Amino acid sequence: MRVRVAINGFGTIGKRIADAVSLQDDMELIGVSKTRPNYEALAAVRRGYPLYVPADRLEVFEEAGIRVAGTLDEMLSKADVVVDATPGGVGAKYKPVYEEHGVKMVFQGGEKAHVAEASFNTLCNYEETLGKQSLRVVSCNTTGLLRIICSIHKAFGVKAVRAVIVRRGADPKENKRGPINSIVLNPPRLPSHHGEDVKTVLPWLDIMTAAVAVPTTLMHVHFLNVKLEKRVSREDVLGVLENSPRIVIASASGTGIQSTAELVEYARDLGRARYDLPELVLWEDSITVAGNELLLFQAVHQESIVVPENIDAIRAVAKLETDPAKTIEKTDKALGLRRGWLS
Amino acid sequence: MRVRVAINGFGTIGKRIADAVSLQDDMELIGVSKTRPNYEALAAVRRGYPLYVPADRLEVFEEAGIRVAGTLDEMLSKADVVVDATPGGVGAKYKPVYEEHGVKMVFQGGEKAHVAEASFNTLCNYEETLGKQSLRVVSCNTTGLLRIICSIHKAFGVKAVRAVIVRRGADPKENKRGPINSIVLNPPRLPSHHGEDVKTVLPWLDIMTAAVAVPTTLMHVHFLNVKLEKRVSREDVLGVLENSPRIVIASASGTGIQSTAELVEYARDLGRARYDLPELVLWEDSITVAGNELLLFQAVHQESIVVPENIDAIRAVAKLETDPAKTIEKTDKALGLRRGWLS
Repeated sequence: MRVRVAINGFGTIGKRIADAVSLQDDMELIGVSKTRPNYEALAAVRRGYPLYVPADRLEVFEEAGIRVAGTLDEMLSKADVVVDATPGGVGAKYKPVYEEHGVKMVFQGGEKAHVAEASFNTLCNYEETLGKQSLRVVSCNTTGLLRIICSIHKAFGVKAVRAVIVRRGADPKENKRGPINSIVLNPPRLPSHHGEDVKTVLPWLDIMTAAVAVPTTLMHVHFLNVKLEKRVSREDVLGVLENSPRIVIASASGTGIQSTAELVEYARDLGRARYDLPELVLWEDSITVAGNELLLFQAVHQESIVVPENIDAIRAVAKLETDPAKTIEKTDKALGLRRGWLS
Repeated sequence: MRVRVAINGFGTIGKRIADAVSLQDDMELIGVSKTRPNYEALAAVRRGYPLYVPADRLEVFEEAGIRVAGTLDEMLSKADVVVDATPGGVGAKYKPVYEEHGVKMVFQGGEKAHVAEASFNTLCNYEETLGKQSLRVVSCNTTGLLRIICSIHKAFGVKAVRAVIVRRGADPKENKRGPINSIVLNPPRLPSHHGEDVKTVLPWLDIMTAAVAVPTTLMHVHFLNVKLEKRVSREDVLGVLENSPRIVIASASGTGIQSTAELVEYARDLGRARYDLPELVLWEDSITVAGNELLLFQAVHQESIVVPENIDAIRAVAKLETDPAKTIEKTDKALGLRRGWLS
């Protein structure tokens, strides 16, 4: 049985999820939906994805000469699961439409947590989300934080996390966002929302985050200070992280990769589509253990990190797979994700 | 009695110290020295500063048509104190020359700590440095860290500091440095040297720092997590910081200043020379107290923050003033520095 998936929104996240769904043998991509007839709509057609539009947008697409397969309602009527990849906050407005069609829903982290029955990260709470009517895949930064926290927590127990997020200012395609030459407190009032968002999945965690936005489009960088339940060695930590899914470890001294620029260049050299790096990247050089404190730097590719979790979330709501390890294996194999050392 | 000050190096730091020395009624600027006949040398002449050059550079300056007052040796022979503002590491090479002339020496943070008898910050260790033959004013980031740490320590006791430094990639005048669009781990191996540099002044402190470099030229931003000896209220902290010299407090919600761009714009609007902000800027909105943890954001103007400390260091080696509060008052009045709320 293949679950029929529709994707509403075909921007940065939606187009990547569409590609990823197409690669799964237990899913069928019914179609994608978009409101504006721009170059991304053209790309959807070129990729052969059935393109649906809200009924009141049919004319606009016709004028633009873009052939559509039907209306959003028609797409939803054929689907078992809809992935909402509309801009942040817009998903909540579509929710009643999705409910009318009785489809299961996967929302993105741009929505408020209460949009869905649960917030989701495969490594943290897959079992608890099985069969839910709606899930929310947390945002890119939160996904990056959860991957490392849950991997470390399973092995050693995490008591508290203090993290600083150095955010990319805009995505590569955006040309109306800043900053162009400053460091913006994002926000000035502490803590930033990222820690609170982590708590939508791990409500017991003592976590505080701060964030700044800087003039780059490539990736985010996090600095983490993790207080562990017990003292461990650096080797213990590396041993766990080497075997954690969706995490790769880069050695700056061994590879010359010291920045997000070099990481992206390596993704391009590897032939990654759109230079995507859905894996969380940790720097081995930065991994420092002092007493029961663990310090490290990690990088998050904001455009693609949530894609594997979206695939798993589809499996969770559709109850296609009950074992998180198995959905991870399946998703990561289909998407070509790596783990262990980056080399 | 006015102490005779010579400045070797007339780049980003040297030219600002020359201006600041000129404004002190207990100091006389003997001259400045430079090795290259560039626009900064022209600016020195235009400002009326006697310009000295190493003997082997006389010809180069003559060819460039820049009138010089004499050789570096001649300048040093007239001085009581030399401020070395040559590029990082070059000061150590000049040290024997300075010693030949028997002048007291003030080095910058780009030199290794052992270049001088002590590393220096007025708020932390002024009394201990009185009459030394040589001092090293620590770098911009270290100065920013020391100002806040020593202010807080005097009031509440500081046990430990964990800080992340988001560094400007280059100074405004530089056109051969990056990054242009990435976040660089600086360095990947933790901790960064800044914490170690703080310990050259506060050897007892448990401090670890991490740093990234980002594509901006305006200022650095620090995120600090300070563990205090006791629990305090946010009001207690604000009460202390409002009255700390060389620290100003910005309210993002009250002033709309949320980034380094807006801070610099405000400095320009205030008519500050070169838009300098030698004050450490704290964001009130970010000041957060949780148990005995204090969290906050601060900004450091890399080009000017060390200038007041250089003036004080001259007074310390020359024993012009034994009371740190009095040199601070004198320096800050002459330079027009503010404290308290930015408004």
